Amino acid sequence: MKQDIPELMRERGLDALVVYGDTDTSSDLAYLTGGAHLERAMYLHVQGQEPVLFASVLERENAAATGIPTRLWSDFPLSRFLKEAGGDMAAARIAQWRAIFEEYDVRGRVGFYGLMDMGFAYRFLSDLAAAIPEIEVVGEEPPNLFSTARETKDAREIEIMRAVGKATTEVIANVYDFLSGHRAQGDMLIQADGSPLTIGDVKAFIRLELAKRNLEETHEHIFSQGRDAGVPHNAGRPEMPLRLGQTIIFDIFPRDRATGYFHDITRTFFLGHAPDDLAQKWLDVKRVFDEVMAAIRVGEPGGNFQQMTCDLFEAMGYPTICSDPQTTVGYIHSLGHGVGLDIHEGPRLSHIGPQRVLRPGHVVSVEPGLYFPDEGWGVRIEDTIAFDENGEIVNLSHFPYEMVIPVRA
Amino acid sequence: MKQDIPELMRERGLDALVVYGDTDTSSDLAYLTGGAHLERAMYLHVQGQEPVLFASVLERENAAATGIPTRLWSDFPLSRFLKEAGGDMAAARIAQWRAIFEEYDVRGRVGFYGLMDMGFAYRFLSDLAAAIPEIEVVGEEPPNLFSTARETKDAREIEIMRAVGKATTEVIANVYDFLSGHRAQGDMLIQADGSPLTIGDVKAFIRLELAKRNLEETHEHIFSQGRDAGVPHNAGRPEMPLRLGQTIIFDIFPRDRATGYFHDITRTFFLGHAPDDLAQKWLDVKRVFDEVMAAIRVGEPGGNFQQMTCDLFEAMGYPTICSDPQTTVGYIHSLGHGVGLDIHEGPRLSHIGPQRVLRPGHVVSVEPGLYFPDEGWGVRIEDTIAFDENGEIVNLSHFPYEMVIPVRA
Repeated sequence: MKQDIPELMRERGLDALVVYGDTDTSSDLAYLTGGAHLERAMYLHVQGQEPVLFASVLERENAAATGIPTRLWSDFPLSRFLKEAGGDMAAARIAQWRAIFEEYDVRGRVGFYGLMDMGFAYRFLSDLAAAIPEIEVVGEEPPNLFSTARETKDAREIEIMRAVGKATTEVIANVYDFLSGHRAQGDMLIQADGSPLTIGDVKAFIRLELAKRNLEETHEHIFSQGRDAGVPHNAGRPEMPLRLGQTIIFDIFPRDRATGYFHDITRTFFLGHAPDDLAQKWLDVKRVFDEVMAAIRVGEPGGNFQQMTCDLFEAMGYPTICSDPQTTVGYIHSLGHGVGLDIHEGPRLSHIGPQRVLRPGHVVSVEPGLYFPDEGWGVRIEDTIAFDENGEIVNLSHFPYEMVIPVRA
Repeated sequence: MKQDIPELMRERGLDALVVYGDTDTSSDLAYLTGGAHLERAMYLHVQGQEPVLFASVLERENAAATGIPTRLWSDFPLSRFLKEAGGDMAAARIAQWRAIFEEYDVRGRVGFYGLMDMGFAYRFLSDLAAAIPEIEVVGEEPPNLFSTARETKDAREIEIMRAVGKATTEVIANVYDFLSGHRAQGDMLIQADGSPLTIGDVKAFIRLELAKRNLEETHEHIFSQGRDAGVPHNAGRPEMPLRLGQTIIFDIFPRDRATGYFHDITRTFFLGHAPDDLAQKWLDVKRVFDEVMAAIRVGEPGGNFQQMTCDLFEAMGYPTICSDPQTTVGYIHSLGHGVGLDIHEGPRLSHIGPQRVLRPGHVVSVEPGLYFPDEGWGVRIEDTIAFDENGEIVNLSHFPYEMVIPVRA
């Protein structure tokens, strides 16, 4: 939580931290500035001082609206430093930051955060460290200070995320109604004019439903059918007509433009009817989903539930990445991930990498799935859940799990 | 252009380059992979070898569809390196990259590109340089290799951008019609039910118009009125009713989801009528816009036209950032910027920083403006133009410059 930041700085021995970037891509900056639109802004927090936000003159009011004391870059005009540096932009930029660091008495261990071109970051921070001997540049391995602060949501954030979940499930409900309002002809769904309804038509409908709710997509949703559903990040081929009796994965993960928070939910369904063999696959995933949802709880590392998922699928005879990291079929991803101002954030429900114990305030997706493209199918079922202050599960995705969407004959 | 990359590598003495990241934020990676959706992908190009694209198993088909030879991260399983490193993730990641670099014989000067947490980039690249003595980590100042390649568009890119411009101007045309279809009551525009039409209503309409054309907004458009139009990046207050006789800045800069290319266009208009004093301000900006559009040409540094713009505004008695870098009123930004897979890219039409001579294939915005929030107004007029292979201007924003939108009495 935001209030943890001073303590997280102490734990890391940080005397100051800098978060630089654009709020629409640097989500750590969005976290600190609460929905303001800022480009090339800098948040500077010296331990024991009030933070300060540097912004462009074009965005001075956006910056001021955050409630953080604001300075303008033009208070330290780059043109002046450029002149002093004989036109050398790299030197001018270092001189500008040195002047700012001097004014705010930045010294000691300084953590740097926010997205930047990786090569430029390496060069710039190396130059900055060389130019200001009073500072030690600190870069963190993930999960860093902000991942750690952000993975625990406060009550206000969970309320926001509940609303984003509600808006997202409204979209799904309307897509279901849209589909079931169409008529089948042979094994295809057709439109009023007799032409086949395509995935592209559904995607166009989804886009309008999202826009009506001020939801935006940073990645396009997945609406993939048959063998395409067997490759997890296949978004679906627009030209493909919708067919009855095939697995369709509908995975949607929009961001609420007003608050910046994401939601993540997946349903797999069949149009018209489910063939017995594929219905069984759907039921297998649903059973794993239900068992994991019943088991998942605070106080245990997220990786335990990934292991549980793998064990359940393997007991059913499916390959998993837990026993074969190189498998391309079966269960081939992690169980879930934190959701917040990034669609993928901490804590990760993965058996690989740093383990976080699940805690009140965590918001994670739970998304077991099976993928067999060569057999022409894939199934994934996903909800996003929050653990409230008592550690109880609050399902932010409450929407029915329907195997079959009936269509008009 | 993409075909310039090997030569740009030679100019920089690069033996190899790495572009890492997600395609939706790392536009250099999007440039190389042509619209594929990829998360945590790596493009590796060793001079004289065919490039290779590393992707997750979940996205193996997205990666393969790029036509670039593909490898999976799981060919170098992190779990194995983690085990060998005794659970030390930082060491495991370095070992994984070292194994990849060994297989592809990466040595010498290696340029790194793509967005990453700046602190982590510094740490990771420092560690990588220490662990692989055969490489020298190269990070570039902007404009880097990719800015340079990307700022010159080929004929195919300009065709795409022409189509994005056309779709964007359709949105503007429909917004104009939407506004002029409303009725005035007193100094406000009202809806059929008699309630005031608000900026939020217009924004909702704009969102639908964008969604219908598969255009997305990475930043929200600007639809700002009166004093808010006097602060360039004020996006407009949704609750505010639309009023007659005020400057309204409508600046829209969507991205075409299918291709990833942006368009950028601004119109300033009055609803119903323009008061004489504000009409004169509009005409002043329009005159500067027209003079700059008539003058701008290939073969000259972009900064010359920023200086010309400042000179014209100063001759009219307005303050500018050219003579006063700290002014918050008058002409307070640069004349324009390159547009492409980023909304702001090279070449910059700025008097500060590295100067680029304008060339065939450059696509830039031209956007003079005046801002006086305390006087309750702001005006900006902007088109995006391309220089074709003969250096002729192709206006990608062709849309009329209307001062007043008539409304129903």
